[in-house]
Amino acid sequence: MSDQYAGGYTTRRNVGLIRVVTFTDPDKLNAHGALIERRVPRLSVVSRCIPDQPYGIHDDTSEKTAIPKIIELAHSLVDEDRVEALIVSCAADPAVRELQASLRVPVVGAGRSSALFALSRGEKIGMLGITPEPLDALTEVLGDRLVATAKPDGVANTVDLLKPEYRVQAVVAARSLVSQGAEAIAISCTGFATIGIIDELAAACGVPVVDPVVAAGVICDYWLT
Amino acid sequence: MSDQYAGGYTTRRNVGLIRVVTFTDPDKLNAHGALIERRVPRLSVVSRCIPDQPYGIHDDTSEKTAIPKIIELAHSLVDEDRVEALIVSCAADPAVRELQASLRVPVVGAGRSSALFALSRGEKIGMLGITPEPLDALTEVLGDRLVATAKPDGVANTVDLLKPEYRVQAVVAARSLVSQGAEAIAISCTGFATIGIIDELAAACGVPVVDPVVAAGVICDYWLT
Repeated sequence: MSDQYAGGYTTRRNVGLIRVVTFTDPDKLNAHGALIERRVPRLSVVSRCIPDQPYGIHDDTSEKTAIPKIIELAHSLVDEDRVEALIVSCAADPAVRELQASLRVPVVGAGRSSALFALSRGEKIGMLGITPEPLDALTEVLGDRLVATAKPDGVANTVDLLKPEYRVQAVVAARSLVSQGAEAIAISCTGFATIGIIDELAAACGVPVVDPVVAAGVICDYWLT
Repeated sequence: MSDQYAGGYTTRRNVGLIRVVTFTDPDKLNAHGALIERRVPRLSVVSRCIPDQPYGIHDDTSEKTAIPKIIELAHSLVDEDRVEALIVSCAADPAVRELQASLRVPVVGAGRSSALFALSRGEKIGMLGITPEPLDALTEVLGDRLVATAKPDGVANTVDLLKPEYRVQAVVAARSLVSQGAEAIAISCTGFATIGIIDELAAACGVPVVDPVVAAGVICDYWLT
């Protein structure tokens, strides 16, 4: 590569990323970190996952169970791994508010990041996730700019999204948001990033679609001045 | 430099940037583009300024006068310079909505970008600019999260900000926002970026302070997949 990309960067910056799904396969664990490093090459991402939640966060109960585990992991990433910023890679933004109040490093949630970037491109936002109801983490900033919410038919949790038969349902759901007036789509489940469908959705819909994982990485990078 | 920063990037991306202050000095014209290129090395920024507005946009009249000039420049940057995205480098986001509706490339305003990044770090946002009243471009997304607005005492337009005696007034104003509860500060005049005071403000206040120019650049970069 040419040195024209060097800019002022002389060192990479260490960022911690918390997965809220339990993985044993390191490639799966590191999948979101890899997406971020590809788009934000200055960042070096250390990924960790919470224990005993193989289906992730998909309802209120699973979210409540996850929160203390996320807080423990976050403190360990800051205190032991010495990360300079933290990403909670779940669009429900579990524990993000608490961690922002208790940690001195920037803490960024994928959900709010997705909503914020969607607002950079339009006034009428659609939300595409895995739950029939919109997520508070996104509605808090979207307010009445949220015009519609959709989920792929048949999908109940982030693991379902890995099944190829749901890709077409994701496209159908995204298109339904546009037909309801969405000028941009905020993805409200990081599983859509995991399966690499974001660009396909944008191409199929003709409107900008936000990758919540990359958006969180970009925001994190911004704050590491 | 090491090749660890290369990531997936093989080419730089051309972005157009519109200054709403008239400059004849190319260094001044290119100042915002240089700030963005330093933080987002993938972007190559082409800067243009509107004619006949040496004091920029600082009230309703100067904004109305600027809008048709911005639209003309934007179309010329897309049609002739072939830029892949556009930044309107003014926190009032003049003509941004119109350009988003009429151009096929991403169009990003510095004002909304500033507000969006502030919301990534807090629930109570202070706005620091050059007008006593908050700017609509930011309040549209901040809503009731805007807790206070401030300006440096004595500053009436972006050119005033260049005078060294106002740096201390900028710090005083930023601190007043924190004392009113701001957890993060959205800068609502790009002149604060021009004078390189953002990091100083953050250090003096102890809360995150958003650079509207860099934030716009980062958002623009995100959308150039």
